[in-house]
Amino acid sequence: MILTDSLLDFFLETRKASEAICEPLEIEDYVVQPVVDVSPPKWHLGHTTWFFEEFILKPHAKSYQEFDSDFSFVFNSYYETVGKRVVRSDRGNLSRPSVKKVYAYREYVTEGIKEFFGHAQTQELNDLLEIGIHHEKQHQELLLTDIKFILGNNPLLPVYSTKFADHPVETHQQDWVSMEEGIYEIGHDSNAFCYDNELGRHKVYLQPYEISNKLVTNGEFIKFIEAGAYQRFDLWHAEGWDWVNQQDVKAPLYWHQIDGAWWHYTATGLQKVNEAAPVTHISYFESFAYAQWKGMRLPTEFEWEAGQAFFPWGKRWEWTESAYLPYPNYQKADGALGEYNGKFMVNQKVLRGSSIATPSKHTRHTYRNFFHPQLRWQFTGLRLVK
Amino acid sequence: MILTDSLLDFFLETRKASEAICEPLEIEDYVVQPVVDVSPPKWHLGHTTWFFEEFILKPHAKSYQEFDSDFSFVFNSYYETVGKRVVRSDRGNLSRPSVKKVYAYREYVTEGIKEFFGHAQTQELNDLLEIGIHHEKQHQELLLTDIKFILGNNPLLPVYSTKFADHPVETHQQDWVSMEEGIYEIGHDSNAFCYDNELGRHKVYLQPYEISNKLVTNGEFIKFIEAGAYQRFDLWHAEGWDWVNQQDVKAPLYWHQIDGAWWHYTATGLQKVNEAAPVTHISYFESFAYAQWKGMRLPTEFEWEAGQAFFPWGKRWEWTESAYLPYPNYQKADGALGEYNGKFMVNQKVLRGSSIATPSKHTRHTYRNFFHPQLRWQFTGLRLVK
Amino acid sequence: MILTDSLLDFFLETRKASEAICEPLEIEDYVVQPVVDVSPPKWHLGHTTWFFEEFILKPHAKSYQEFDSDFSFVFNSYYETVGKRVVRSDRGNLSRPSVKKVYAYREYVTEGIKEFFGHAQTQELNDLLEIGIHHEKQHQELLLTDIKFILGNNPLLPVYSTKFADHPVETHQQDWVSMEEGIYEIGHDSNAFCYDNELGRHKVYLQPYEISNKLVTNGEFIKFIEAGAYQRFDLWHAEGWDWVNQQDVKAPLYWHQIDGAWWHYTATGLQKVNEAAPVTHISYFESFAYAQWKGMRLPTEFEWEAGQAFFPWGKRWEWTESAYLPYPNYQKADGALGEYNGKFMVNQKVLRGSSIATPSKHTRHTYRNFFHPQLRWQFTGLRLVK
Amino acid sequence: MILTDSLLDFFLETRKASEAICEPLEIEDYVVQPVVDVSPPKWHLGHTTWFFEEFILKPHAKSYQEFDSDFSFVFNSYYETVGKRVVRSDRGNLSRPSVKKVYAYREYVTEGIKEFFGHAQTQELNDLLEIGIHHEKQHQELLLTDIKFILGNNPLLPVYSTKFADHPVETHQQDWVSMEEGIYEIGHDSNAFCYDNELGRHKVYLQPYEISNKLVTNGEFIKFIEAGAYQRFDLWHAEGWDWVNQQDVKAPLYWHQIDGAWWHYTATGLQKVNEAAPVTHISYFESFAYAQWKGMRLPTEFEWEAGQAFFPWGKRWEWTESAYLPYPNYQKADGALGEYNGKFMVNQKVLRGSSIATPSKHTRHTYRNFFHPQLRWQFTGLRLVK
Repeated sequence: MILTDSLLDFFLETRKASEAICEPLEIEDYVVQPVVDVSPPKWHLGHTTWFFEEFILKPHAKSYQEFDSDFSFVFNSYYETVGKRVVRSDRGNLSRPSVKKVYAYREYVTEGIKEFFGHAQTQELNDLLEIGIHHEKQHQELLLTDIKFILGNNPLLPVYSTKFADHPVETHQQDWVSMEEGIYEIGHDSNAFCYDNELGRHKVYLQPYEISNKLVTNGEFIKFIEAGAYQRFDLWHAEGWDWVNQQDVKAPLYWHQIDGAWWHYTATGLQKVNEAAPVTHISYFESFAYAQWKGMRLPTEFEWEAGQAFFPWGKRWEWTESAYLPYPNYQKADGALGEYNGKFMVNQKVLRGSSIATPSKHTRHTYRNFFHPQLRWQFTGLRLVK
Repeated sequence: MILTDSLLDFFLETRKASEAICEPLEIEDYVVQPVVDVSPPKWHLGHTTWFFEEFILKPHAKSYQEFDSDFSFVFNSYYETVGKRVVRSDRGNLSRPSVKKVYAYREYVTEGIKEFFGHAQTQELNDLLEIGIHHEKQHQELLLTDIKFILGNNPLLPVYSTKFADHPVETHQQDWVSMEEGIYEIGHDSNAFCYDNELGRHKVYLQPYEISNKLVTNGEFIKFIEAGAYQRFDLWHAEGWDWVNQQDVKAPLYWHQIDGAWWHYTATGLQKVNEAAPVTHISYFESFAYAQWKGMRLPTEFEWEAGQAFFPWGKRWEWTESAYLPYPNYQKADGALGEYNGKFMVNQKVLRGSSIATPSKHTRHTYRNFFHPQLRWQFTGLRLVK
Repeated sequence: MILTDSLLDFFLETRKASEAICEPLEIEDYVVQPVVDVSPPKWHLGHTTWFFEEFILKPHAKSYQEFDSDFSFVFNSYYETVGKRVVRSDRGNLSRPSVKKVYAYREYVTEGIKEFFGHAQTQELNDLLEIGIHHEKQHQELLLTDIKFILGNNPLLPVYSTKFADHPVETHQQDWVSMEEGIYEIGHDSNAFCYDNELGRHKVYLQPYEISNKLVTNGEFIKFIEAGAYQRFDLWHAEGWDWVNQQDVKAPLYWHQIDGAWWHYTATGLQKVNEAAPVTHISYFESFAYAQWKGMRLPTEFEWEAGQAFFPWGKRWEWTESAYLPYPNYQKADGALGEYNGKFMVNQKVLRGSSIATPSKHTRHTYRNFFHPQLRWQFTGLRLVK
Repeated sequence: MILTDSLLDFFLETRKASEAICEPLEIEDYVVQPVVDVSPPKWHLGHTTWFFEEFILKPHAKSYQEFDSDFSFVFNSYYETVGKRVVRSDRGNLSRPSVKKVYAYREYVTEGIKEFFGHAQTQELNDLLEIGIHHEKQHQELLLTDIKFILGNNPLLPVYSTKFADHPVETHQQDWVSMEEGIYEIGHDSNAFCYDNELGRHKVYLQPYEISNKLVTNGEFIKFIEAGAYQRFDLWHAEGWDWVNQQDVKAPLYWHQIDGAWWHYTATGLQKVNEAAPVTHISYFESFAYAQWKGMRLPTEFEWEAGQAFFPWGKRWEWTESAYLPYPNYQKADGALGEYNGKFMVNQKVLRGSSIATPSKHTRHTYRNFFHPQLRWQFTGLRLVK
């Protein structure tokens, strides 16, 4: 539980952080959607704002006047409970509302929240505000990776910012952490904030395993490429092999081979690949194939959680072998918030940890991220188990 | 033939006109591409500029420095002769170059042309400039209709301009012009500018026909709708009927039925349909079905050209029954300019006349416009023959 | 007009001819539909039978008992007037009715017609019967080309029949027929049977032209391939070029390059290409590109009809430059028969002549065949004009 | 371990069983493939035969002569190790080899195996034969369900056999089996045959749960339909909801609502739905939504295996909540057999038990079946947990 005052600070600081991410953009960059999974930045700015308006201000703040009644249509994402919404693939077709108007909307709603929580509110409303803040933090990571995709997909390869170093190195020696067979407790275990999908702490029985204390590096991944692994069907899932061939995948996302050397698009523009940095922008399919090639495997999310205290993490979201499924006794929240997690629990893989793009105070060792196995635009990475 | 001085004036006035069309836009409106046939306005501004740079300045103006070598990739449209190009469906995924930079590019190339044609040039170069001017005029019409689509497809239905009246009325009485059987001359017949597809003036034998002196109106078209014609397969081509059902077409583009009345999106926003104005934003399939329903037919392009002196035209591009085919002795121009017309002469229908969106000095009675039969975002219309 | 007796003979002989075409088939060959344009042979056998049942026996023969009420659903093709129908792409998914049952259906309906026309009937009914016969003849050609596709698409490349020579040679010397400028009469001009699309004989004005007295040969077409023409965009329509690249087209349909030599699948199995025989199984796009490469063009259907008396024809359906459009004063037949032709008059090209697969008494010099420009499974060919 | 003699009997009995399943078919029924997941019966007959030829006879039986070298291309399924294969979606386009030839192939290979195993062979070869037998048994179930789909998809709804009762009733009273929290052993535990995906017996920790001793019935499922559950997004996964809407799903596969009553296609033709029989032909998505609607859930595969001794099973394959993943210490077999299971371990759900279509001696309580969550043509069913 967070006191209202510090909660309000947390709110304001989060709102500013979203805008700081967009600071280097041209207005045009806010608008486009090159692929369906990548939303226009102005949509993220509007959608995170709409969440506060729709779930807090409109139902609870009596004197609040809605900013624009069309916005609940434009900025709803997947909340079927809350009426019609713009189809996800159409977000990049909307030039209006303008970026200027979206910022005005943000300011208006931020002021509304400030005023409303200037007075003490119920615990339930504080909880809603906290969810809204974490919802916006979650979108901050998408905002950054979507911006990277929008610019990295442009043939001009424009620089995003010279201040964001998306390829930090892990300098410690690679080693194996031995974990004993037995019962481990899994799931959230404090009063601090977490999502519903982390709740229902429960026992899991693990067989003995060894987990690497270091992420797989670019240099190691280049060996995999050079061994012809993208042409060897026996290393891949059947669906992974189809994906490799249909998309003509030959290297991680953003990589370009120029005169025999590997370069990649980064936040600071096109750079030579640093072999010491952990590999990123790889799919689950590629992570799995890499592990197969090494004669090892990926950890399950339980192995990761049980072992995580013994190695550093936080630079790359790490693919696990686990499918995204409900914990025993999982309880979906009521109403629209119940649409947050449960309805995605099929055909997705769990990722654990966090990445260079994760906002502060947003992750924890029980956090369960999830994506479809072919997606690569997040700062994903890979840790081996044997 | 136009003297260089007045040609330069014509050029400058055309360049300004493109920019005037964009004057009411927000920056965001320049970027999006809601469907593949509609290009982002900034792409039109860049592409028409690239044409002058690529075909005149780069090969002929010795001291000219290319503005940006990446632009020939970004702003090429379909000229396979001139190297790689951005796939048409990807134009709306590019946030850069920015609108500001595109305007700088325009100014730079306009200055380059001004300087180059400040000195007398060969007839061939004057001809190239004239083609470039007409090319830009052609894009002006697309620019306007693409903007209309971008705004009219947006759920907020923003106003483009209160000054552009896209639904003028024809006030004269409907009557039939009787045309006699016999030989008529078809095709361009002067020294003035025309496209290669109008050349090769030749004789055509026409059977007797009567052609309406007036376009079909909204009021007449509403009767067609109310007669259930969109549900009667026998009025449609097989491919038209598939199109109606797959796209769930029930009225012209931009029409909305609200509480039993017909409204449509116009440049001035959502308006009640004026029954006296000529119907527009209809496909060839709808034009044909309307004529079938009336027991009449559409004119061929030859009937239209032979009869055009006897009725007013210019508000709507008029669908004809003619397929877009080469005239006898059609000669495709050499090199990249040869890609202008000939390669589209399959699966398209000819439209004759011009529309409310056609720039001044751009059309003539021999002008042959062409589109695929299902397209509706141009200011298309319909004239009957019996 | 044909007398009833000889009409009945014509009917019986036509029914037998369809079955003779299927004589070499295994039962399995009657069932499959490898691509949407190719129908299963048993469907052709049933559909041509259904036509006689639906349009003659059911409405006019009082004592006639329908064979099976489900068949009008299964064997209807595109006659929207006559109720529901199996979607064209689903024909190959139906294992029942069995081939045996389809033959029983044929025999039953043939007997029904025999009995009904054993007594003199009205002229209108005789005309309907004649249309039905020609309808079946039209399907005989499709039956043969669909069988060729079914077998030629099979990796085992089974032989159809050693008796059908689909690659006859034209032995005469190539020469040019000079045609004078002037007015020519086009369209059907006798009391013999023709389709509605040939009617409305009318005058057409032609410019002077020279038309080849011989079809383009395989040997000539190999030169086109060897000149790299499938890689030269400037020879193709924009849609043709897309087709070449999306389908990876490098030679006519059924051609295989084996150890540097050209072979093709024929009715007698895989054979070496005979350079002297006329090229076949080419699309309109390829015909056009070939003519471009030679610096010539295809005839219009009017030029073909005006000149056809001066050269032999009948081995290959010949692509023309003409789009399939109604003649002046075209009158669509009433009711379901009106769906025969008119509704296809968009996005198709006219072919003139006939082919090695055309049944006897089926074509004439005014016959207008039509297909989409990318299709190749008919015995299509190419004649040049300059 | 099975002695060679009884193994050979097991082999011969299995070969006969495949042919017995096809006994009621017309030749035409062997050929078609209405959807990509449903293979033509003759393909199953050939593919199961090819397995014995490719993995046993060709590499190990010295005097064996290959039946036809083209067949390894035609009848390979997904074994990338073993060379080219016919794309899965094209199987229904092949009329040849004929059904007669496929039966000749079966007889030839059956004789080859009989002769080869007439002499004692190594344990390794016996194991290969056993795998081949189980491979054929697995295909027998698909053969039956594919035949049901081929006939049930035909508008004539032909009867398959009056002897196959695909809707047996569970007559016992519904009750809940209480299972205690604790450690359970999961996985295969004997020397009898099993697949690699069942191996690696290991401990799993389960929370307390209650599992139904009875499958959900048609009558119960009709209540779900009548409660409007197919229109309530909150009961579905997001991907399930898209599937319901895109496919317009309103009831289990093969169900038809006729004059207000529910009928379904069965092996004996169209029948009234028996409310007492267990529901079948439902997807995982529907099973999950049903459980949501009841306020319960599906078992995990571990809960199912731990509890299975306390309830009868075997009429329906039962969807579980578990994703198909490798067990700890999963070892993929070497070579082509390694392609059997591991490469499908992504995006699929586990089903446990067996169905009315499962051949004798084919399932066991550790058997792990798996399908994509939207598939329904197997005899799937649903058991609740709370």
